[in-house]
Order: sequence, then structure tokens, then C-alpha cells
Amino acid sequence: MHHLRGYFPILNWGRTYDRNAFSNDMIAAVIVTIMLIPQSLAYALLAGLPPEAGIYASIAPIILYAIFGTSRALAVGPVAVVSLLTASAVGQVAEQGTAGYAVAALTLAFLSGGFLLLLGILRLGFLANFLSHPVIAGFITASGILIAFSQLKHLLGVSAHGHTLPQLLTSLGEHLGEINIITVIIGGLATAFLFWVRKGLKPMLRRLGASPTLADVLTKAGPVAAVAVTTLSVWLFGLDDRGVKIVGDVPQGLPPFTLPGLSPDLIGQLMMPAILISIIGFVESVSVAQTLAAKKRQKIDPDQELIGLGAANLGAAFTGGYPVTGGFARSVVNYDAGAETPAAGAFTAIGLAIAAVALTPLVYYLPTATLAATIVVAVLSLVDFSILKKTWGYSKADFIAVAATILLTLGLGVEVGVASGVGISVLLHLYKTSRPHVAEIGLVPGTQHFRNINRHKVATDPTVLSLRVDESLYFVNARFLEDLIQSRVSDGCAIKHVILMFSAVNEVDFSALESLESINHRLTDLGIGLHLSEVKGPVMDRLYQTHFLRDLNGDVFLSQYDAWKALAKSAEMKNAAE
Amino acid sequence: MHHLRGYFPILNWGRTYDRNAFSNDMIAAVIVTIMLIPQSLAYALLAGLPPEAGIYASIAPIILYAIFGTSRALAVGPVAVVSLLTASAVGQVAEQGTAGYAVAALTLAFLSGGFLLLLGILRLGFLANFLSHPVIAGFITASGILIAFSQLKHLLGVSAHGHTLPQLLTSLGEHLGEINIITVIIGGLATAFLFWVRKGLKPMLRRLGASPTLADVLTKAGPVAAVAVTTLSVWLFGLDDRGVKIVGDVPQGLPPFTLPGLSPDLIGQLMMPAILISIIGFVESVSVAQTLAAKKRQKIDPDQELIGLGAANLGAAFTGGYPVTGGFARSVVNYDAGAETPAAGAFTAIGLAIAAVALTPLVYYLPTATLAATIVVAVLSLVDFSILKKTWGYSKADFIAVAATILLTLGLGVEVGVASGVGISVLLHLYKTSRPHVAEIGLVPGTQHFRNINRHKVATDPTVLSLRVDESLYFVNARFLEDLIQSRVSDGCAIKHVILMFSAVNEVDFSALESLESINHRLTDLGIGLHLSEVKGPVMDRLYQTHFLRDLNGDVFLSQYDAWKALAKSAEMKNAAE
Repeated sequence: MHHLRGYFPILNWGRTYDRNAFSNDMIAAVIVTIMLIPQSLAYALLAGLPPEAGIYASIAPIILYAIFGTSRALAVGPVAVVSLLTASAVGQVAEQGTAGYAVAALTLAFLSGGFLLLLGILRLGFLANFLSHPVIAGFITASGILIAFSQLKHLLGVSAHGHTLPQLLTSLGEHLGEINIITVIIGGLATAFLFWVRKGLKPMLRRLGASPTLADVLTKAGPVAAVAVTTLSVWLFGLDDRGVKIVGDVPQGLPPFTLPGLSPDLIGQLMMPAILISIIGFVESVSVAQTLAAKKRQKIDPDQELIGLGAANLGAAFTGGYPVTGGFARSVVNYDAGAETPAAGAFTAIGLAIAAVALTPLVYYLPTATLAATIVVAVLSLVDFSILKKTWGYSKADFIAVAATILLTLGLGVEVGVASGVGISVLLHLYKTSRPHVAEIGLVPGTQHFRNINRHKVATDPTVLSLRVDESLYFVNARFLEDLIQSRVSDGCAIKHVILMFSAVNEVDFSALESLESINHRLTDLGIGLHLSEVKGPVMDRLYQTHFLRDLNGDVFLSQYDAWKALAKSAEMKNAAE
Repeated sequence: MHHLRGYFPILNWGRTYDRNAFSNDMIAAVIVTIMLIPQSLAYALLAGLPPEAGIYASIAPIILYAIFGTSRALAVGPVAVVSLLTASAVGQVAEQGTAGYAVAALTLAFLSGGFLLLLGILRLGFLANFLSHPVIAGFITASGILIAFSQLKHLLGVSAHGHTLPQLLTSLGEHLGEINIITVIIGGLATAFLFWVRKGLKPMLRRLGASPTLADVLTKAGPVAAVAVTTLSVWLFGLDDRGVKIVGDVPQGLPPFTLPGLSPDLIGQLMMPAILISIIGFVESVSVAQTLAAKKRQKIDPDQELIGLGAANLGAAFTGGYPVTGGFARSVVNYDAGAETPAAGAFTAIGLAIAAVALTPLVYYLPTATLAATIVVAVLSLVDFSILKKTWGYSKADFIAVAATILLTLGLGVEVGVASGVGISVLLHLYKTSRPHVAEIGLVPGTQHFRNINRHKVATDPTVLSLRVDESLYFVNARFLEDLIQSRVSDGCAIKHVILMFSAVNEVDFSALESLESINHRLTDLGIGLHLSEVKGPVMDRLYQTHFLRDLNGDVFLSQYDAWKALAKSAEMKNAAE
């Protein structure tokens, strides 16, 4: 039963669900639904899909996440970055507007769902850690910029395309002659209005005496107002006949049952993008979920989150949607509105289902420029270059990883950008460990503690060379220690003993073992003793299985101080140690 | 001048060159030349090139390496594994036997030389460390098997092809009907004879009273004898008319001046293989050079070796050769024969040039089966599965990397095999560091030394949780420590202080810094102090630039013992510590 509850978290919170939780969840659902209607249409537009796909992608996935997910406030559905990734991936296999495009989006959701589910069942959630915080921050910022530029065409009424900043700018430049002035006016006013709603409306309402809740709800309803006003204007003044592009016919009805395309060819082309979308979506979702859970001292199980998101994506694949994940904006709104359990998500799904059945004719005259404006205003809040300054001050390696991620995402597209970010972080880490810090150490007087002779006032002995190796020894740096000791002992001819203090050596792999053996042979030839100190348990366990310990010409000491006491010969040094 | 000598090591040994060194070098050169003539022809065959390419690849490269290389005994030229890699890479862009094939081999040598030179100038020799010892061992073993199977067609007189074991076996199976019995007899006898020369001839000659040097020279001349006898047999009995394939016309003359093909298309296709060949060739060459240098207490400069090998490959590209590197067999022979300086290599080049001018008509009737036999006997000595047993006993991660390298090299070819070996080693290393060992530690009584409470008898205090983090903290494991401390403090409610002993933390990157900040916030909320001890200098330097140290609710102690003295409250524990 316990095991079952692990896989169906709904069994935990469902048993204690009461009227109070119900009413809180209901209120949250109404607010989130109002916010989601224009947002879902807009993100579908960003993904290159018909507007209803955004609504469909918010219904089944939300319900499935409510059953399998562990976060109580996470709202699952289309989000900006994943929509952009979808457009980029699907754009490579099909033309926008074709049936093949929509089918490929379903396939992408299916593959992504399957991959997430697989990772969850294999408990491989730690893979997401390969995306470092700075790389994520850089990627989100660059994606925000890309998204904003990709929406410019809707705000100007021109037809441009591209998946990188240079492509988008070139394409916009080529089509600049087609600008539709009325579209520009609608788009400009909608953008300005939405920025004002975001920054200025809430303080103003509070000053006018509105309750915090009311002010909040009205602020969230801003995009709905923009949608309503611009739609009415187009309808009243027949602006669609004057070149303003509108959403047009949106089918009325519940999400259809759809089948993703599963030809080996399509799967082959979409597999890598699906893996990428899964990992990015998972990282975004888990960090939102953890942030919200921490506020209420609740816990998230990342491996179960993989299963929840996997189920949600499979749901999207079979109900006319596209890849989804837990979104930051919608989850925060859900949380702030007082959602207590995943049931709030289910009620939101019902609200959206009603909208899909009843309200779609109302958006016929909705100009795409308004949707573009809601996207631009939403994503520009994601753009934050402060990570560049923070990492520059702390670590140049992290800075390089962020800067490369931003530049490559803008210049070569989202997939290359994020993959390079991960690759560069890993390579820089390996590079750092390939030339480890090795400190010559001496005894801090009056203690049994040893520190770097260049940083601390310590006692040393010319016949004993004590080296603290500040890195695990493995193939990337195995030869480094060999060369270093070789050059150190050829410098100091008084040396009779070398002590390697292994307090920071967390691993000795097979290549490093061979290097240690060769160091031992060389020092034996030179009549110098090789000793180890403070070897950790797990490392010692390994070494016991080899003949290295038998061949070692010196000893292994429990502590560096023991080694020093046994080997330091000069009397004055001994005195200093006492 | 010193700087110049760094780039031209010839200026070092050239100044002191004397008659004694000259005569030693001369003797070595004669022995190596005799060995190299059949070997060069054979490796050219293995690479899919006309036989003279093997001789040409041994002339200019040897001279260029003598000028730029740092090893005194290394003999540069065609080697088995690089020949196999060449056949695999060039086979993908051109048909064997066409002019395009030979040009692509020149291009491969050119790209490889350029890449090595670039690495050398940028001092990037450490990149070779990414190939771990076990991966190299596994790769060499698998390559030896592949090479032996690729030569079976010559020993059987059939026409088969393929770059992986399944391909080779299938192709051999299909052509089994074409077997030429006379070829099988020649090939079988030559193989048996060469095995006997390698294993049994030297002991027998010594028993018969031959001097060690004479026995050695006669053993090295074994392949020449096989070549002479089989060539004569074919000529006398007209076996070439009975289906025995022979070497045929080999142009007489010095190496020609050739130009590698440099179309962007060809460069694009050969760039990755060239990088792979460069790195594998460099690793093989440097390990041979280091082994030989260590015996005479000489030194190798890996970055200058890159320049020497780069120059040698560029030389091969412009003189009708193909990629070369320092070979194990030829270098050992050179060393054993008493070579004192790189001049021995230059004399070998002269010997081979004479052979190219005068001796090529003599190999017209040489059966390719004899060449195949010399290859098979040479490469089977490379095959050594003991690395599997050794790594199995020591470290399963290393074992997995070796086993994968062997299986993938045999099953999918040399390029996939070695690239996967590197990738798998790196991923396994990252995986290990993603779940670091964290030991709860206590004071070893009577000392100031702290060890794992599960492995040693130590004193502890219920109000102080001391954790030794056995890994650098970076993005891959940043979140791990957060979760671990969270679960440890929620288990023990008596805990008032957490001390993180950082003796094994060699790096704290930006992601880990954010995790430490969040640990500090959570512990502060719970009224628990967070302290650090034994933070290394380089890590401390970084932390000083952040506000983490200001925000830290506890202290940073020089040693774990200081932290313990200051924080451990219970009197009996304090007593234990005194």
C-alpha cells in the first residue's frame, strides 16, 4: 500500500480532502483559468500550432499530473521555453500549418513523455543535475530574447521566420516592406497596456482602496481585457479586411483523441529534441515545485515528478496537445491564489474544457498581435543578465559556461545552445581537475594540523616532503602527479621521505593506481620512501585488493601527524611539533 | 637561444654528437631498416594503400621527427593501429585502389599533422589524458583482433572487406568459396614460421652458441627471410599464374612530392577521424617514448612531442605517405639495438630511401599472404585480455569502460569504439561524483584527528553533527548535499550545530555556492548553526568574494578540532577530547 501511494500521490492527499480545501482550490482554479485562456492560445501560436492545441495541452496533462505528481501547487501545461523548443524541433521535420506539423508535435510529446517516464521508473532524476544553475539561467535569458524577437513578426504584421537571432533579424529585415500599420498600432497598444498592468495596475488599485485579492484578480485578468478590447475593435471596424491577422476558426469541443506519428524516421529525427525538451522541462518544473514546496515545508520527490510529467506529456500526445511541463508563472498564480491540493489543477482543467466547448467562437476576431503582446510581456520578465555579473565575480569557469550558453543559444538556436552549455560545463570541470592543486604542507605549531607552507606559518623538515593532493586521482590527472613528484624530488636532494596526504583524494581509479605504482618504483630506485596518510575508508578498501600496498616501500599512516612523528628526523623540527 | 632549443631539440644533442654515438646509431639503423622494409609494405597493405606508401611514410617523417622530437629512441612511421584507423576513415570517402583513396590518405595525414601541431603550440598535450589507461588497453586489444581478422582474406586468397568484426566475418563467409589453396599454404607456413621466429628462434640460436647480438639480428631478420623464400617460390614455380596474389609493380625512386586534397567537403568528412587518429597516435607514441626515456633517466616533453609528431605527419602528407606515429615495436628494436640519438632515425631513413630506389623490383613476386602473415603475428602480440581481469578486481567502473571499449570497437568499428570508451569513462566519473561519499565523523581519542564513526572508535556529541564531504561540490552534486543535510537534521532533533569538514572539497562552483546558501537559510530557520572547517586556501579565496561568509550563521574554523573544541558542549565529550 505504501509502495502504491509512492506511485499515486493522489492517495495521500485524497483521503483527507475536505470542504475547506475544496473551496480554496475552487477559487484558485477560477483565477488560473482566466489567466490560462489567452496564455494557452498564445503559446500554441509560439509553438507554430493552431490555437486550440494550447487549450487541449492544458486539460488532460493537468489531470494526469494531479494523479501522479507530488507538488501541490504546480500547474502543468504549455510554457514559453518548451513551446519555443517545440517550434524549433518540429520546424525541422514539417512545414508550419500542415497536418504533418501537428502530428510531429504529438510525437514529440509522446517521446518526451516516454523518456520522462523511463527516467522516473529507473530513478534517474539526478541526470537533471548536469544542467548547472548558471547554464539554466543563461539559457532561460537567451530563450526569452529569442521568443520576444520571434513574436515581432506578429506585432508588425509581416511574415518572417527563423530559429536563431541572426535568422530572425535577417528575415524581419527582408519583410519590413510588408508592415501593416493597424497591426502595429494594435500590437503596440496591447504591449504597452500589458506592461502597465504588470507594473502599475496593482499599486494603483491598492491606492484606490481595492482589497489585495481583488487587485490581484484584476491584474491577472489584464490579458483577458486586452483580448476582449482588441477582438471587439477588429470585429466592429472590420480590421481583418484591412490586413490585421486574426485567430479565425477554432473548433468547438472537448480535446479530440489523437495518435502521435510513430514512423521510425520521425522518431529518429525527434528523439534528441525530445530528450532535450524533457530534461529542460523537468529542470524548470522541479525548481518551481521545490521553491513552492519549501515555502510550506512540503516535500517533492524528483523521481516521482518524472513520472507525473511523463504521464502529463503522454496525455498531451493523445489529446491533440504538444509537450508540456510545470510552468513558473501559472504555478505561482495557482499558489498565490490559495490552491491547497492538485485538485485545483483538475478544476482548472474543467474550466478550460468549458472554454474549449463554449468560448472558442468568441476568439474568431482576436488579432494574433494581441497574443504576441502577451507572450512578449511574459518572456521579457525571464530575461536577466545579472547571472553574468554574479558568475564573473565568483568563478570564471561558470562565467564562460553562461556566456557561451547565451551566445550559442542566440546565435545557433536553443538546442545547440543548451547542449553546448552542458558540454562546456563538464569540460571545464574536467579541465580544472586535470591540473589539481597540490600543496606542500607543514605542521601548524602547537597543533596536530597541517597546512600549506605558502599560506600559513608552519614547521617543515628538509628530509620529509609532505604533499597534500587536492583532487581525486583518476585518468584525467593520473600522469600529472607522476610528473609533479618527479620534478619535486629532483629539486630537493635532501629528501628522504615523501608523504602523500590523501585527505582530499576521494577516488583512485585504475589509471591512477598504475601511476602510484610507477611513482613508488621511481622513488624506490632513488632510495626515497613513499608514504600515504589519511587515506579514506572507501579508497583504502580498494587498495587492499591490489598488490600496491604490498609493494609500497613506505607505510600508510592514519593521520598526517602520525606520519610526521614517525618520519621527521631533525630534532628541532620534532620540538616544534611537541 | 634556450627558447629556440625548446622547439628544435636537435640543437641539444647535435652539439655533442661524436664518433662513438655515430657508430652506435649506424648499427641500430641497419637493424631497424631490415625490419622496416617488410613491415612498411605490410602496414600500407593494411591501410589499403599501394605498398610504396608504407616506405614513403617512413622516410620524411623520421627525419622531421629527428629534428623536432624529444625522444632519443622513438622510431616514427606507419603503425598497425593507425593504419587500421586510416583504412576505416579513408574507406568512408573513397574506393580502395582509386587515386582519390591515396589523396584522401594524404589529407588525413595533413589534417592530423596540423591538429597535432596546433595542440603542441597551444600546449594542450594534457588532452591525451582523457584516454584512460584501461580504455587504451581495451582499444589496442580489440584493434589487434580486428586487424588479424582483416588480414584473413589475404591468407585465404579471397576478397572480403569490412571495418567491424561482424562485417568481416559475414564478408569472409560469403567469399569462402573463392579460397586459393596455394595461398593458404604460403600464408599458413609464413605465419607458423614467423610465430616460431618470435618464440623459438632466439633461445635456439643461443643454445647453439650464437652471441646475443647475432641471435637478436637473426631474429629481427625473420620476416625478411619469409619474404625472400616466398617471393622466390612464387617466381620459380609461377604461382602468380595459379591465383596467388602478389605485390606487383612498385615504382622505383625517392618519395614523390604530393599535395593533399583540400576541398572543404573532404576536410569536413576527414576532420573527426583525423582528430581521433592524432590523439590515439599521440598517446601510443608518448607512452612508448616515456617508457624508453625512463630507462635512461631522460625526459620527454609531451607538448614538444606534439610538435614533432605534427611535423612528421605533415611530412608524410607531402611525400606520398599516410598518418604516422611513434611505433612500439620499431622503437623498442631501435632502443635495444643501441640507438643513442635521433640520428639513428635519420640513418634509417637513408636506408629506406636506398631500398625505395634500388630494391623495389625485388618484391614484384612477393605474395600479399606473406605480408598478411607478418601483420597477424605482429598484432596478435598486442592482444591482451588481462586488463579485463585486473580492472574487474579493482574497480567496476573501469571494467565497464574497458569492456564497452572492446565490444564497441569489435562490433561497431574503431572510431565508435574509442570515442565511446572516452565518453563512458567521463560519464562514469561524473556519475560517481554525483552521489558523493559523506562520512559522519568523530574524534579519534587521544588525538586531534577525526574519522568516520562507522569505521573507527571515535567520540561524538549528540548536539554536534560533523560531516566530512568527500567530494568537490559542483553542479552535478550541488543539490545532493542540500537533500542529505535536510534529511539528517530532520532525523536528529538534538542537533544544535552542523560542521561541514571541507578537507576533501577542492572546489565550490557557483551552483554549489547557491546550494550552500540555501542550506544556511534552512538551518537558520531551524535554529541550527552551520559551520565550516578545514576549508582549503583556493576555496576560501573564492568564498571571500561572496556574501555567503557574511550571511553564514556560524563560523569557519581552521581545523575540525578547533570547531569541535568550540562547539561540543557535553563535558564528557570534552574530556574525551583532552
